Amino acid sequence: MKLSIKQKVLMEHLNYVIRGISSKNLIPILNCIKFELSNEGLYLISTDNELAIKSFIPASEIEKIDIQGEMLISGRYIYDIVRKLNNEIINIEEIIDSQVLITTNSSSFKLNCNEVSEFPNIDLEFTGSPILIDEKVFKTTINQTIFATSTQESRPVLTGINFKINDNLMEVTATDSYRLSKKRIVLDSNVQDNIDIIIPSKNLSEIIKLISEDDDKIEIHIFSNKVIFKIRNLIVMTRLINGNYPDTNKLIPETFELKVKVNLDNFYNAIDRASLLTNVEEKNIIKLETKKDIMIISSNIPEIGNVEEKIQIEKNVDSDIKISFSSKYMMDAIKTFDSEEVELSFNGEVKPIIVNYVDNEDLTELILPIRTY
Amino acid sequence: MKLSIKQKVLMEHLNYVIRGISSKNLIPILNCIKFELSNEGLYLISTDNELAIKSFIPASEIEKIDIQGEMLISGRYIYDIVRKLNNEIINIEEIIDSQVLITTNSSSFKLNCNEVSEFPNIDLEFTGSPILIDEKVFKTTINQTIFATSTQESRPVLTGINFKINDNLMEVTATDSYRLSKKRIVLDSNVQDNIDIIIPSKNLSEIIKLISEDDDKIEIHIFSNKVIFKIRNLIVMTRLINGNYPDTNKLIPETFELKVKVNLDNFYNAIDRASLLTNVEEKNIIKLETKKDIMIISSNIPEIGNVEEKIQIEKNVDSDIKISFSSKYMMDAIKTFDSEEVELSFNGEVKPIIVNYVDNEDLTELILPIRTY
Repeated sequence: MKLSIKQKVLMEHLNYVIRGISSKNLIPILNCIKFELSNEGLYLISTDNELAIKSFIPASEIEKIDIQGEMLISGRYIYDIVRKLNNEIINIEEIIDSQVLITTNSSSFKLNCNEVSEFPNIDLEFTGSPILIDEKVFKTTINQTIFATSTQESRPVLTGINFKINDNLMEVTATDSYRLSKKRIVLDSNVQDNIDIIIPSKNLSEIIKLISEDDDKIEIHIFSNKVIFKIRNLIVMTRLINGNYPDTNKLIPETFELKVKVNLDNFYNAIDRASLLTNVEEKNIIKLETKKDIMIISSNIPEIGNVEEKIQIEKNVDSDIKISFSSKYMMDAIKTFDSEEVELSFNGEVKPIIVNYVDNEDLTELILPIRTY
Repeated sequence: MKLSIKQKVLMEHLNYVIRGISSKNLIPILNCIKFELSNEGLYLISTDNELAIKSFIPASEIEKIDIQGEMLISGRYIYDIVRKLNNEIINIEEIIDSQVLITTNSSSFKLNCNEVSEFPNIDLEFTGSPILIDEKVFKTTINQTIFATSTQESRPVLTGINFKINDNLMEVTATDSYRLSKKRIVLDSNVQDNIDIIIPSKNLSEIIKLISEDDDKIEIHIFSNKVIFKIRNLIVMTRLINGNYPDTNKLIPETFELKVKVNLDNFYNAIDRASLLTNVEEKNIIKLETKKDIMIISSNIPEIGNVEEKIQIEKNVDSDIKISFSSKYMMDAIKTFDSEEVELSFNGEVKPIIVNYVDNEDLTELILPIRTY
């Protein structure tokens, strides 16, 4: 293998594939990036077996392709070396078996490499009929749900995000059993077979970093044990989590005793301040109480002091509510909305609190109260 | 005590005094900020006994002074509360003994406070004849030297920065005994008595955060056991470190066998890249070698690979040098220069390496080599 390539071009693609290398990986071969050079261009591939990223640099963006071939180069080293080089031409050449020479006008690096044959063979072939979705919509959806996934390995299915697709309705759900986040998206076309899969949230958090905020479509190819995303010149594979995701729709009430409209920023800032006088050990409990058209948010740490915040609200009925919950969970939930107002829905002090946009239920955030009264 | 003040005004001054509160302090009273309200204005004072910061908000910047008085308010809480309030009027009032009420239109905080009488009485009176120095010059000087101080408590004097003043020449020195950093500054006027003091570097690192980059003068008032800085509306006290600072001038050679001029960015970047193939455990050793008008910087980790960097240089004599040193120490030293070129001076492979500006010796960085040849 021998080629010459601009630092800037190679760096852009190393920035993608480095995300496929886990810093905790103890298998040396999985710390390598596979370089595959042909007349068409250069493929870079990384994987930790759970996630795989393949990036393509077409020949038109490469200065010179001298000798086609394949090599495994240490991901961390090639990434840091290229990052610290100026934007100049970099020559990469296999000099003897499993040793690569990386040179510029003034720098010369020799790195020992692993045997290409040791690298896992990841099948990145597509299916016939991918699901198409806007990059921006997909990225927003993941950001609006991922925080609610569980970090506890005791219930593996809750460490992932559930994607259910029936006809053209996609429902994306995350829950750690104390709070739940659900987003509904209408796709451009129907799926042939209904879909119900769980994607590990740690892989999704890497994948959304590869996605820009523009309107290009990404392709989602779903298999029984993996999903392959096509994002511009990138192909990304993630394994699925085995198991049945709980039926969460029955957790979201259809009727409510009280609905409250509140300004989003005022509500968020009041909770943020009230949570100054809460303890992490006590789940940052704060109290919410309505009195006519005023909402009072309060909390206290006995030895330190107390706080009371007041906000103007609009209610749909005359009744009032007194309820306690985790300020952290509520702030995580509110952050997912980008509107001026949100609607809070209540069914008494021991039933879930629901947060929605005022005018639609595309995004539902659910928080379980904490009994204190 | 009772007053009304704009959030923005109070926040600016809390940002100063919060630096006087150590996060590691176990004495509760030292986690408080003392509020002293008189008709002249509001003083805020914090101290951990080693460092004290006193900030003054004149009455003209305060909305309303209702009742003069003094209070101790928890520094961390008042700081976070004011930071999270909008820019509106904040009312602060002592309601019962040692309890403060902090209110705005929508927020109401009650905090328990400590007794004012428990707060240490820090003498912040000035001397007659302070040393005057530009804010920018002082800040730059500390930044150019502080990294070379020792973090090892076994030789306390080396954990501080030494200030020596003879007539109008101030010499500022830091060393951890492996490298040394020395800055010379000519003051506007002579000092009456020669000065030789050691200021703890951990206090200086907080003090320079209080200093802006403009041309205002700061006043330095020196006492036998402390120094008081007057920085704009701020009075800052730091204790001194007892002991004799080593005579470091004899460590800096007056003559050299070889002087090398090199482009600063090229030299820094070459070392930065070479240090990719070094080990922290082996002090990031790299080798430097001159061959005619070329400098070669190299390093290797046997199992990973090696690197060789080449840079154009200009020498004062025909001889060459081969020397090894810590890449981290050299990079720390080079970062303190802001010129296009620097001059490296050598006396063979076991003698200190000196880095200077090409045209003057105001700033001297010394690095001990590591014997490898």
